[in-house]
Amino acid sequence: MKIALAQLNYHIGNFEANTEKIISNIQSAKNKGADLVVFAELAICGYPPRDFLEFDEFISLCENAAQDIAKHCIDIACIVGLPIRNDVLQGKDLFNAAYFIENAKVKSITKKALLPTYDVFDEYRYFEPSTSFKCIDFKGKKIALTICEDLWNINDNPLYVSNPMDELIKEQPDVMINIAASPFSYTHDDERIKVLSDNAKKYHLPVFYVNQVGAQTEIIFDGGSLVFDADGEMKAEMKYFEEDLQVFDLTEVENVRNKYPQPERLTDIEQIHDALILGIRDYFRKSGFSKAVLGLSGGIDSAVVCALACTALGAENVMAVLMPSKFSSDHSVQDALDLVNNIGCMHEIIPIRDATEAFDGMLAPAFKGLPFNLTEENIQARIRGTIAMAMSNKFGYILLNTSNKSECAVGYGTLYGDMCGAIGVIGDVYKTQVFQLAKYINKERELIPINTIVKPPSAELRPDQKDSDSLPEYDILDRILYQHIEFKQGSAALIAKGFDEALVKRILKMVNAAEFKRYQTPPILRVSPKAFGMGRRMPIVGKYLT
Amino acid sequence: MKIALAQLNYHIGNFEANTEKIISNIQSAKNKGADLVVFAELAICGYPPRDFLEFDEFISLCENAAQDIAKHCIDIACIVGLPIRNDVLQGKDLFNAAYFIENAKVKSITKKALLPTYDVFDEYRYFEPSTSFKCIDFKGKKIALTICEDLWNINDNPLYVSNPMDELIKEQPDVMINIAASPFSYTHDDERIKVLSDNAKKYHLPVFYVNQVGAQTEIIFDGGSLVFDADGEMKAEMKYFEEDLQVFDLTEVENVRNKYPQPERLTDIEQIHDALILGIRDYFRKSGFSKAVLGLSGGIDSAVVCALACTALGAENVMAVLMPSKFSSDHSVQDALDLVNNIGCMHEIIPIRDATEAFDGMLAPAFKGLPFNLTEENIQARIRGTIAMAMSNKFGYILLNTSNKSECAVGYGTLYGDMCGAIGVIGDVYKTQVFQLAKYINKERELIPINTIVKPPSAELRPDQKDSDSLPEYDILDRILYQHIEFKQGSAALIAKGFDEALVKRILKMVNAAEFKRYQTPPILRVSPKAFGMGRRMPIVGKYLT
Repeated sequence: MKIALAQLNYHIGNFEANTEKIISNIQSAKNKGADLVVFAELAICGYPPRDFLEFDEFISLCENAAQDIAKHCIDIACIVGLPIRNDVLQGKDLFNAAYFIENAKVKSITKKALLPTYDVFDEYRYFEPSTSFKCIDFKGKKIALTICEDLWNINDNPLYVSNPMDELIKEQPDVMINIAASPFSYTHDDERIKVLSDNAKKYHLPVFYVNQVGAQTEIIFDGGSLVFDADGEMKAEMKYFEEDLQVFDLTEVENVRNKYPQPERLTDIEQIHDALILGIRDYFRKSGFSKAVLGLSGGIDSAVVCALACTALGAENVMAVLMPSKFSSDHSVQDALDLVNNIGCMHEIIPIRDATEAFDGMLAPAFKGLPFNLTEENIQARIRGTIAMAMSNKFGYILLNTSNKSECAVGYGTLYGDMCGAIGVIGDVYKTQVFQLAKYINKERELIPINTIVKPPSAELRPDQKDSDSLPEYDILDRILYQHIEFKQGSAALIAKGFDEALVKRILKMVNAAEFKRYQTPPILRVSPKAFGMGRRMPIVGKYLT
Repeated sequence: MKIALAQLNYHIGNFEANTEKIISNIQSAKNKGADLVVFAELAICGYPPRDFLEFDEFISLCENAAQDIAKHCIDIACIVGLPIRNDVLQGKDLFNAAYFIENAKVKSITKKALLPTYDVFDEYRYFEPSTSFKCIDFKGKKIALTICEDLWNINDNPLYVSNPMDELIKEQPDVMINIAASPFSYTHDDERIKVLSDNAKKYHLPVFYVNQVGAQTEIIFDGGSLVFDADGEMKAEMKYFEEDLQVFDLTEVENVRNKYPQPERLTDIEQIHDALILGIRDYFRKSGFSKAVLGLSGGIDSAVVCALACTALGAENVMAVLMPSKFSSDHSVQDALDLVNNIGCMHEIIPIRDATEAFDGMLAPAFKGLPFNLTEENIQARIRGTIAMAMSNKFGYILLNTSNKSECAVGYGTLYGDMCGAIGVIGDVYKTQVFQLAKYINKERELIPINTIVKPPSAELRPDQKDSDSLPEYDILDRILYQHIEFKQGSAALIAKGFDEALVKRILKMVNAAEFKRYQTPPILRVSPKAFGMGRRMPIVGKYLT
């Protein structure tokens, strides 16, 4: 039996495009001699459809699309994911399901049992977990089909009290197929390979795994679909961050015990880079926009975002706006211009002095001679936000946010100022990782000026300001943030790890006091296991940690 | 047996304050002769603690607080809600639980079985559902204790496949106690009374129900704790929107079949008014702030918010900023000043002309003579946002957002402009309800100038602008929005209801195209069953409905 894995980039709720893409891949798989073509979890509507699922019309549109797809399953069978109604008047109204289609008919339905409800996942919000399990009979083989999380309950502290494969194995299946929508983080590829390999070994069955690829707003799917033999040896690894369709012969996978020549794995920074490019590109493409604008300060964050945007969208589609103030150093403007010249994007220089003076004058009566402070720093940032949004409104450019994860974490940014934007490009990338990204971007030639990389970070909102006036060195800050955010370490645990007590308490207080700011920031492209946004849901008016 | 229901206002993660309050109410209940005092669901940490629950330290702090509380349970027993660890290495790491404490010891633990995971609720994100059920023996009575949602599975299309009371009833209990954290919406009090009465009748048992009261950022708990006899007749209804402690004699509830003289129910608008006052007050009190600032335009939205804020915080703590432009009509400034005079709050007048001209000049080279359009309208709104935030930054006032639900829905507002603020006061109140609120606020005397109420709504961002230039009349708009948002009706269903097809499609497209704006707006005080914010999670880059 020949099994095709179709690793595709879906668009949520775009039934026309998704259906057309699925049908065309059924045809391609057939042309390549496949007996069965497998599409990802919720392929028909895209993952995650979120509260679209609460519209009955949306579920009908999924079913209609499945019927259209079924018509094309002649001389090839297909497995495709979609949400379906629960016709029992008890429990949630929907199942996360997959159709097995043969001879243009839905022959069987598989429902997901383990519903991820943590981090960015909300599946139990919508779906009833399945409690019945049945293999699929096809061409003399028994297929144990599971949906994504259904195979992930095999570690020492399993999240669920049941295990679908423990039921399916009773039918003595010949092969496992898992359809997934498993989001990227730079730690995820290794975990995925281990979990699938462990499943193959535990049940002594080959595993065919197909993932989605592409970004859905902030969530990025990296593809990387996989095939394992019954010994848990990897037999194939499909493309990362790209669509891919490959056909595998089950007999070969079963019988040929030779090692598959695994490609060299990407480093974390390479993965983050490629994920961000895909994230930017899909945000624009799926929103129907092509041009971006961003504020270019001469600092490293906006330089990295500008370079990423130029790669993702083409330099001719990126407008960099330089908005110097009286506190901007000469080198900042020069560094920004050097980048623009290196990279070839559009640019405008719009000094903010006139607006700054206008606000100073307008506010003087109310401010009654109170001294310059954070207020006036924020006004500068908000003038820049207003200019960037004006360029966006006037020309249809989409504003990219350039805040990094370290400053998002501690609230070192101005709400409605530099925290503006439609999408946060590096909001899940710590400052220390931003430096690594910059070096990676410069690997072939100096795109980002060296001076931008080596000079001390500064917001330049008052004379001779440095980030280190307000924050600890990023090296130590990021290590504390990483433990607190990614590993949920409270102050006692951090102090026990040897971090300075006063520093830990100060940083944790900053992080949690900034929750109200993060609530109002753009969606952030997720590249780590714990990004700010929908995957981290903290009280705003809370006392713990502040 | 005398049962005290302690309906209290907790602060999330403020263990010191919550513990002190619980202990002081144990003492009060004892003084009033109670044998048992009952506190709400997750009383010890406050509800909803959200991802604080993922910090192991947080769970330890809950346990420590419970041990402190236990010491005070001498000559009185207590039921109190808290999260506890799941010591089985399978399933989620926590339970949503309640301790039954007697003679200073935790005698038994009850765990929640039905975990609301919809709208604003995320309980399965954290908790393992209980599968074992046991009544509490106390003073010769058997108590069937359940936690909130555990009693809510009794309609015709139940959300869960099991029902905890069906298990507990096998022990032939004498009384049901339910501890809750059941958020307010203006439809919720009637539903709650019906559900509890139906439970009393179904199991033929008296029901004692205690709810939290108070606002936790956007989620408002209204209290309204209840007692029913075994016939399902209401025997007591505790205060709404206030703390309350009442003691009930179980024998009297069991035996006296007389009708309880139910207080007249509040109208929807009265409930919304009281909820918003509590929402504003608790946001400030629990954040440690006392003063508010808002932009006052002369229109009805900001007038209503100003009046609400003055009631919640005291007029002396509210700063209204009038920010007229060249498009502001004379009557707008006069209407705003009339309100300020009627209500006695602080005010500043800061005309925005200088900043508008500065931006016009600064942007002229980049804009190359392109005509005035939405861009320049947005600049005005963003100048106002910047001024309001400058007042906030300089004086420590918290900015109130004044957007109503109708304009939030269709995106009729400027991101980083009038959509700024720490908390959205009327973002869950449709424009037609805002008019009703204004009339209710004026019930005793004219606080909001009549002219503000009767004039046609306008954003005044260009000459002679009216909302009706861009939007349908609010009367029809709100009816379509209500069906679409509260009842999740898609376009086909709305057209079938008789709404104009072109209008329906235009409005639904506006609603869904504004998702990126709503993602970045402040938390909105929730007063309806479906508010924008954490209870409505829509894709941003999606195609369905746009």
